Amino acid sequence: MEKLADIAVEEKARKLSGWEVIAVDGEKRLVRVFTFDDFVGAMAFSVKVGMIAEKADHHPAVLTEWGKVTVSWWSHSLGGLSEKDFEMAGRTSSLYEG
Amino acid sequence: MEKLADIAVEEKARKLSGWEVIAVDGEKRLVRVFTFDDFVGAMAFSVKVGMIAEKADHHPAVLTEWGKVTVSWWSHSLGGLSEKDFEMAGRTSSLYEG
Repeated sequence: MEKLADIAVEEKARKLSGWEVIAVDGEKRLVRVFTFDDFVGAMAFSVKVGMIAEKADHHPAVLTEWGKVTVSWWSHSLGGLSEKDFEMAGRTSSLYEG
Repeated sequence: MEKLADIAVEEKARKLSGWEVIAVDGEKRLVRVFTFDDFVGAMAFSVKVGMIAEKADHHPAVLTEWGKVTVSWWSHSLGGLSEKDFEMAGRTSSLYEG
């Protein structure tokens, strides 16, 4: 897997609804906030995301709060975004949208 | 429940091993990073913290990453820290230390 060039990131990000590209310490990440009615709904979603992450052996940062989960995908070893991050972001949205 | 005065926060924080008091948007939070061998260990701990939170009806922010969970307790409605946050922080440490 390789790090995507900026232009490829922009192109792919335009097609990925709901996600923002945010740079943290110079590394680009795909970030989306998902909302829920309560804490239980938020935690249950975080576990679902954890399950697909573990299976794919590609792990996001998942911030669980009351009624809200913020998921961030990036490829730490590459210092940016890869195809895999876009794929996992799309799968995360599908988990939410059902 | 009421918001603790700064001096009470300092006093209590000194006795609470491993936790730092960090101000976010002017609100004090108790924050601790817990480490694990892998993603599964981190996610399992996050769920445990979620369980005691739900039972206590007091909910933290839980950031789950590969090998690491960052737990933050504060009383959003009070704009700072209460006795409950210190109690829950202590219980979180006990969950970790077993």
